Amino acid sequence: MARVNAPTDDILFSLRHVARADTLPDWDDELAGEIVGYFAAFAEERIAPLDAVGDAEGCRLENGRVRMPEGFVEVYRELAEQGWQGLVAPEAYGGQGLSGAVLAAVSEIFTGANHSLQMVTGLVPGAISTLKRFGTEAQREAWLPLLAEGRWLSTMALTEPGAGSDLSAIRTKAVRDGEGWRLDGEKIFISGGDQDMSEGILHLVLARTGAAEEGVRGLSLFACPAERPDGTRNGVSVTRIEEKMGLHASPTCQLAFDGAHAELLGEEGGGLRAMFTMMNHARLDVALQGVAHAARASDLAKAYAAERRQGRGPDGAPATIDAHPDVARMIDECDALAIGGRALCHITLVALEKGDQPDFVEFMTPVCKYFCSEAGIRAADLAIQVMGGYGYLKEYGAEQNWRDARICSIYEGTSGIHARTTATRSLTLNGGAGMRAFANFVAENDGLAEAAEAWSKVAAATAASPDADAYDFMEATASLAYRAAWARVAAVADASADPARLRRLAGRVERRGASSFRA
Amino acid sequence: MARVNAPTDDILFSLRHVARADTLPDWDDELAGEIVGYFAAFAEERIAPLDAVGDAEGCRLENGRVRMPEGFVEVYRELAEQGWQGLVAPEAYGGQGLSGAVLAAVSEIFTGANHSLQMVTGLVPGAISTLKRFGTEAQREAWLPLLAEGRWLSTMALTEPGAGSDLSAIRTKAVRDGEGWRLDGEKIFISGGDQDMSEGILHLVLARTGAAEEGVRGLSLFACPAERPDGTRNGVSVTRIEEKMGLHASPTCQLAFDGAHAELLGEEGGGLRAMFTMMNHARLDVALQGVAHAARASDLAKAYAAERRQGRGPDGAPATIDAHPDVARMIDECDALAIGGRALCHITLVALEKGDQPDFVEFMTPVCKYFCSEAGIRAADLAIQVMGGYGYLKEYGAEQNWRDARICSIYEGTSGIHARTTATRSLTLNGGAGMRAFANFVAENDGLAEAAEAWSKVAAATAASPDADAYDFMEATASLAYRAAWARVAAVADASADPARLRRLAGRVERRGASSFRA
Repeated sequence: MARVNAPTDDILFSLRHVARADTLPDWDDELAGEIVGYFAAFAEERIAPLDAVGDAEGCRLENGRVRMPEGFVEVYRELAEQGWQGLVAPEAYGGQGLSGAVLAAVSEIFTGANHSLQMVTGLVPGAISTLKRFGTEAQREAWLPLLAEGRWLSTMALTEPGAGSDLSAIRTKAVRDGEGWRLDGEKIFISGGDQDMSEGILHLVLARTGAAEEGVRGLSLFACPAERPDGTRNGVSVTRIEEKMGLHASPTCQLAFDGAHAELLGEEGGGLRAMFTMMNHARLDVALQGVAHAARASDLAKAYAAERRQGRGPDGAPATIDAHPDVARMIDECDALAIGGRALCHITLVALEKGDQPDFVEFMTPVCKYFCSEAGIRAADLAIQVMGGYGYLKEYGAEQNWRDARICSIYEGTSGIHARTTATRSLTLNGGAGMRAFANFVAENDGLAEAAEAWSKVAAATAASPDADAYDFMEATASLAYRAAWARVAAVADASADPARLRRLAGRVERRGASSFRA
Repeated sequence: MARVNAPTDDILFSLRHVARADTLPDWDDELAGEIVGYFAAFAEERIAPLDAVGDAEGCRLENGRVRMPEGFVEVYRELAEQGWQGLVAPEAYGGQGLSGAVLAAVSEIFTGANHSLQMVTGLVPGAISTLKRFGTEAQREAWLPLLAEGRWLSTMALTEPGAGSDLSAIRTKAVRDGEGWRLDGEKIFISGGDQDMSEGILHLVLARTGAAEEGVRGLSLFACPAERPDGTRNGVSVTRIEEKMGLHASPTCQLAFDGAHAELLGEEGGGLRAMFTMMNHARLDVALQGVAHAARASDLAKAYAAERRQGRGPDGAPATIDAHPDVARMIDECDALAIGGRALCHITLVALEKGDQPDFVEFMTPVCKYFCSEAGIRAADLAIQVMGGYGYLKEYGAEQNWRDARICSIYEGTSGIHARTTATRSLTLNGGAGMRAFANFVAENDGLAEAAEAWSKVAAATAASPDADAYDFMEATASLAYRAAWARVAAVADASADPARLRRLAGRVERRGASSFRA
């Protein structure tokens, strides 16, 4: 297994110069650099070595409890002790109170080192946001410190056997029981539904408080701890863990809720709204997971191609394969997808943190999720190809990178769902404000004004036609977003450590135009 | 694991009407239909159930010998007893003497049921061709009956640690020893390098008889049995089997040749030419493996989407997901890739069997290998996406289909190698005869004359430029080949069981034009 080299410099350049995180009120440039550098070292030395171990060993269900693979419990303890779980939690509740931009850097590096462990621990910031926004003061006091200190982890329990992309079909029922609520039902595909790393788990559960005919309007969000305050188990049990293509060290659980005590989070019937707070965080996080897999692909492919000798170079002498144009093309594409996808995420995230462009953020979130998850899979595939037969072998890591990346375009809304959202709701959002904000974002870049105008026409036609091809529209939108991101990167290339590299990649993306993303 | 439904009708339609196998002298239409139907039933009932077993269990190296997974030995015995291993071997040597077109149907169905087992057994027809063409009568008499009766299997031992895409770096040495030859060296990535299904194994080994400086001109092909005629082991041992992403039931061996007795096949120094006989068979076979994975993807996705209810259809009633446009698009694409790729392979194969268009066949072989291997991977990926979270689970089979498909664009020459061949040697082949034959093949179809002419100009420019982008050229060539294949399919759609389906798919491919293959 090749060593993991975290793309620390690329990430900091992107945050600072491409996304202008320095314009955020809570950004401390020097501190951010130190924290990211510190985490990168921890990830490379402690977290990354468990990635192949976790893949080979997987999680086990023993006597109704999930056991994580060898070494995960110890590394999680260090992670929690160092305060990484509370990075963005308010200081008043035991957190570090740092910027979401720092979290973006840390999450990407974490995923590049070990997607499975990041998956199990990475739902906490979304839970923290949800509690901050929808929890009562008593709920915040009860749970935020536990999550911030890493004593508890959290889950997002939405999916059911009959309710995947269509949450209106949710059947888990919540009924009032005196002062509180009780949950009954079955949830599937719950990441980190159980594990033996944290003392406790807070399940955030979408359940039906209204009639089935009310669809999503009858759903409410609940906080349901795996253990009751008196230390007894709550009525939540793991009935199965799934055997998956990848993410073997992320326990994907089927959970049975059997009269489990729970507390309502936010308003009754307001479940979807509360869930979207959590979900939108998760969607940008998945986009960053895609970026992490693209960056890891580039890392793996470069390391291999710089060592592997085969054939002869342009000068006729035996050459390493990175001298061959087709190999260089594939490595460049991995790099371009990582850098361009990261720029999209960081730009969206900085706008989210600022809070002054909500329409732009709402338009961009599914675009980032769609583009970056597909980009991660595409780059991971190219890294396998660069390595040829060795890419197909387990010990070289490229095949695990692909298997772990593959989930990104499925969970937190499939690519098809995000395409449909973008081709319908996003276009009419706030009287077309999201659509205009996206067009402006594109048009602001050198040479892209015409493309932005052409896109606006297609967008208007798509908005007007119920039979529009959502997939085609999303592909066009994502490709244009990617080109705009690269135009921004190229414009600030001089601030990077290697401007020539960024200009070469920008030229490559622009030459390929709209097809840059797929081929 | 979903049941395998062999695409028997689609295959027979393609052979009969698209590729006109009925114009072959050795084609017996009724017999072909019977044989293919018989094999399909055997594959569905006996071979397919071992596919998931083989994936889960894998092969083991025990005391220097490879053990196949549970059930493989028994099914192989049935396969051999029924004569399938000798399908195209001459009757004089114990074979069935059937057309290569029948073999194409059988191979595709075999791979769709169990790629691993097909891989281990499917190198035999290439070995038979090589022995027929380059073997002495004594060699043919010694080995053809053993291979035809399935008592022996064969391998293709080319790759070495330092010689993958670049065979000029081969170091395995062959030295004369009295009457015979002895081999010394190390080979890697040898599919079926050992197994416990057949009595014996004939290794076809590329080894150096000349000086290292002679490059590929110093290579010769050898036949090296794993056991000597007196029943003692020859000097060939398995030193390792690889842990791979997929094809777990296909033992990928590292072989050490240690003074192994071998016989020269063909001329000394003529190794590459002899190898290409074997290799070109293997390349078309890999193309058909890609087709098989695309067809299996379509089979899996259709079966799932017809059962899975989620959301509402255009009429507002709860619907199975195949009613959703984005799902229907993905299933159609799987189907289109399978049918179009199959048409390309069958057209090329019928030309190969006829023998009257050698330039066309030589041009098309790498195009088929490139297009169909990528198409199989792409379709397998779409099937995962159609199935959402279930596509990512092991028990639904879609993820194994992708992992097994992924090798196709790597082995028997990577996609990059085939792109380079097509952008260089294929264009200058026989004074440009291959290039013209391809352009004619395209131009003969309704509405594609202009596209053929445009391609010819690009081809001429590519041939003239040493810095041409081989990847771009291959993508353009493969896309055009695919469109031409679909134009042919559409032209004979009335002869199929469902003309409306084929016309819908043809329309889809033509609308997407050159980008049809990737997006």
